Amino acid sequence: MRRYIEDIWRKVSIRHGFLEVDGPTFEYLDLYKVKSGDEIVSQLFHFDSREDKSGRTDTFALRPEFTPTLARMVAAKANSLPRPIKWFSIPRCYRAERQQKGRLKEFIQWNADMLGGETPEVRRQFDLETAALALDCLREFGLTNADIQLRWNDRTLVEHLFELGGVAKERYAFAFYLLDRIAKLSSEQRAKLYTENAVPDCERAFFEKLAAGQDPLQAAFWEGPGGGLGNTGGFETYASAIRDTQQTVESTFALMGLPGYAKYDASIVRGLAYYTGFVWEISDFRGNRALAGGGRYDKLIAMFGGPSLPATGFGMGDVVLAIVLAESGKLPKSVAAAPDVYVVNALATSDEATKLLAQLRTAGLAAVTSYKATKNIGKLLQDASASGAKLALILAPAEFEKGVVKLKNLATRDEKEIPITEVLAGIAIGGYMDSYSRSFLQTAATR
Amino acid sequence: MRRYIEDIWRKVSIRHGFLEVDGPTFEYLDLYKVKSGDEIVSQLFHFDSREDKSGRTDTFALRPEFTPTLARMVAAKANSLPRPIKWFSIPRCYRAERQQKGRLKEFIQWNADMLGGETPEVRRQFDLETAALALDCLREFGLTNADIQLRWNDRTLVEHLFELGGVAKERYAFAFYLLDRIAKLSSEQRAKLYTENAVPDCERAFFEKLAAGQDPLQAAFWEGPGGGLGNTGGFETYASAIRDTQQTVESTFALMGLPGYAKYDASIVRGLAYYTGFVWEISDFRGNRALAGGGRYDKLIAMFGGPSLPATGFGMGDVVLAIVLAESGKLPKSVAAAPDVYVVNALATSDEATKLLAQLRTAGLAAVTSYKATKNIGKLLQDASASGAKLALILAPAEFEKGVVKLKNLATRDEKEIPITEVLAGIAIGGYMDSYSRSFLQTAATR
Repeated sequence: MRRYIEDIWRKVSIRHGFLEVDGPTFEYLDLYKVKSGDEIVSQLFHFDSREDKSGRTDTFALRPEFTPTLARMVAAKANSLPRPIKWFSIPRCYRAERQQKGRLKEFIQWNADMLGGETPEVRRQFDLETAALALDCLREFGLTNADIQLRWNDRTLVEHLFELGGVAKERYAFAFYLLDRIAKLSSEQRAKLYTENAVPDCERAFFEKLAAGQDPLQAAFWEGPGGGLGNTGGFETYASAIRDTQQTVESTFALMGLPGYAKYDASIVRGLAYYTGFVWEISDFRGNRALAGGGRYDKLIAMFGGPSLPATGFGMGDVVLAIVLAESGKLPKSVAAAPDVYVVNALATSDEATKLLAQLRTAGLAAVTSYKATKNIGKLLQDASASGAKLALILAPAEFEKGVVKLKNLATRDEKEIPITEVLAGIAIGGYMDSYSRSFLQTAATR
Repeated sequence: MRRYIEDIWRKVSIRHGFLEVDGPTFEYLDLYKVKSGDEIVSQLFHFDSREDKSGRTDTFALRPEFTPTLARMVAAKANSLPRPIKWFSIPRCYRAERQQKGRLKEFIQWNADMLGGETPEVRRQFDLETAALALDCLREFGLTNADIQLRWNDRTLVEHLFELGGVAKERYAFAFYLLDRIAKLSSEQRAKLYTENAVPDCERAFFEKLAAGQDPLQAAFWEGPGGGLGNTGGFETYASAIRDTQQTVESTFALMGLPGYAKYDASIVRGLAYYTGFVWEISDFRGNRALAGGGRYDKLIAMFGGPSLPATGFGMGDVVLAIVLAESGKLPKSVAAAPDVYVVNALATSDEATKLLAQLRTAGLAAVTSYKATKNIGKLLQDASASGAKLALILAPAEFEKGVVKLKNLATRDEKEIPITEVLAGIAIGGYMDSYSRSFLQTAATR
């Protein structure tokens, strides 16, 4: 299943023009502190190197995510890389946490990022191109706008909202933190946070309206009981900026063949402090689980010693995706590669079977055999069917003496005899093969 | 390059009927001690888990190899798995060592194993099928019997050799250890080892003949100066067992279309203590570097708590392989996926380019564009060529007004105009696409 998921991630990334990159599984622990501060350490698997000659040890951590590695690599080579930088990666990542449904100690996370963009319009295009890559890929898995939605926000517009709500600038970081969790906090938990962070009453009223699910795009939010949270003029500017952005987002996605996915959502702020602009999350309607999330992080490359380089990207993990695909019946029944051909050998020795298997494999077909001593064709055909193979090639003494083998389609039970010298052609002409194998066979034949 | 290597490993494994498996990147440290003893610890990156409620911590190690994981997984499920078990894996592995050419701290190792086999003949077949998988794969990379050879031995025949040489049974482990390194040891180093291990003079004479490169398949080895190392009858039995095995190995490989690769080599013993029978190594003639190695390990699954289950397999790393391929000019010039189509947009807005890109991508083509402000088609075509794209699609105002776009083959510089509504068909009919894209396009068109 993981192979199935990875293959689609890779295929769709390549057709969107992203280049695959990778980095080491572990980095210096300090690299993760640059982005996430000291509190990240308790969430990491980390270990010390052996002492070097001077008695010094280094501390390494298994990567919890790919972004610091990407930032380090881009910072080191920023000036020699063609712009825009369009990179994807499919790293394994690690979290030192107790496992639970949807969260594992070890997982795979698809990342795609676009760096560069000289104008705000181009940068917005990059925001939407990366988001569209995620949507296009989920569509490839069978999830459409009936199953999933992309909810977006913009951190600069959220700051505008805070300003309208009278939040003091020094509490913006707290406000982002609160907004990210507000739907899940009880009123007691919120009250505790207000006290801990010395939030004045006027700001509390604003946060409580958001907690109650009132919509700051409606004039009523600003005018009703507990009102006086700013002025109508400011609200209009905010609301029309949201509407303009939604217009751009929806029309661009429509041009990309992805209409009806995107929705503004004031509660999407993506907790991580490093986001600076457009942020988004894709979740499923059925369980409201986050399948992917990302956004713009224009200051990160400079934090890692690189030039000032605007950037936007996202991550999508394998764990939640697999759960959602399984629950919505979108996983293929079998993702294991079944053999193309099963050689049933009822001859006295294995020499002919060995030869035939090698020929089939050289032609690109996945070919297997039984190694059982029995020459009972009926029993061996049962094994062939159990293997999931598409075809059986039967080597039986009487037919083999005449220079022919039986080719049996295990799905339809059709059988035909073909000369042993024409097995490969017989399989190709029989039209049994999937197109990949057939084109491979044709290529092999014309070499 | 790593993607190129991995893809070929995977493709060839599947056509040989192996199933892909994987395990966690780290295991309990103790798992590695089961197979390799306590001395393995200093070669591993290891770390402690956080304390659980009872104050207990576990120690984990990054995997240095896949076999202990495979043995653990097979031991747990041995009775429910269809036989033979044919598994391959492409894990990342780790060694806490100083890096040097051909040896990195982090590397990828392809593993393939066959478990089961009721008779000695079938087990020998499995030995050769796994070795043939490695050879077939190296042939897929372009390395033939002019570039590489497979040198084999059999640990049971080596024991027979030790017996003929008068080596005491309690020194067999030492004798394997010595034989594995004998070509690289100076006479002083050998003398030191003899003293440390209390090797009597009669055994030293035998080892010194091997060290001098004398061939134990020649009667002279047993009769010359320092002779008296056994009797002619015993030597004949040993020599004919070697000849019989070489006959089986060569004729089986010939049936598999792999003649002229295999050679008996008395010095191949594969140091690891767990091998029990047929052992082999593939190396290149140019630099005598080991590209792959493996063999039979019939006692390992039981050591990991499983049933007694015969097993054979090998490992092939990416690091030495990449060096050998590069040196022999067998690496493709470019392994990065170049775009199929580069959209050159000279229109006033990006809407049409956005739409066209999405259509091309939905049809499975890798499509990119420039995001530059310039409308200079010549400059944009330079970027298109630099990207390595096969085709450029040029959106120019005058042509676009007439409903056409220009399609340019960037290799031949051919150009033609096609209606914008027929871009996909135009690309397909133009015959520019590789067969994969073409078959994908046909599939997309008939959906």
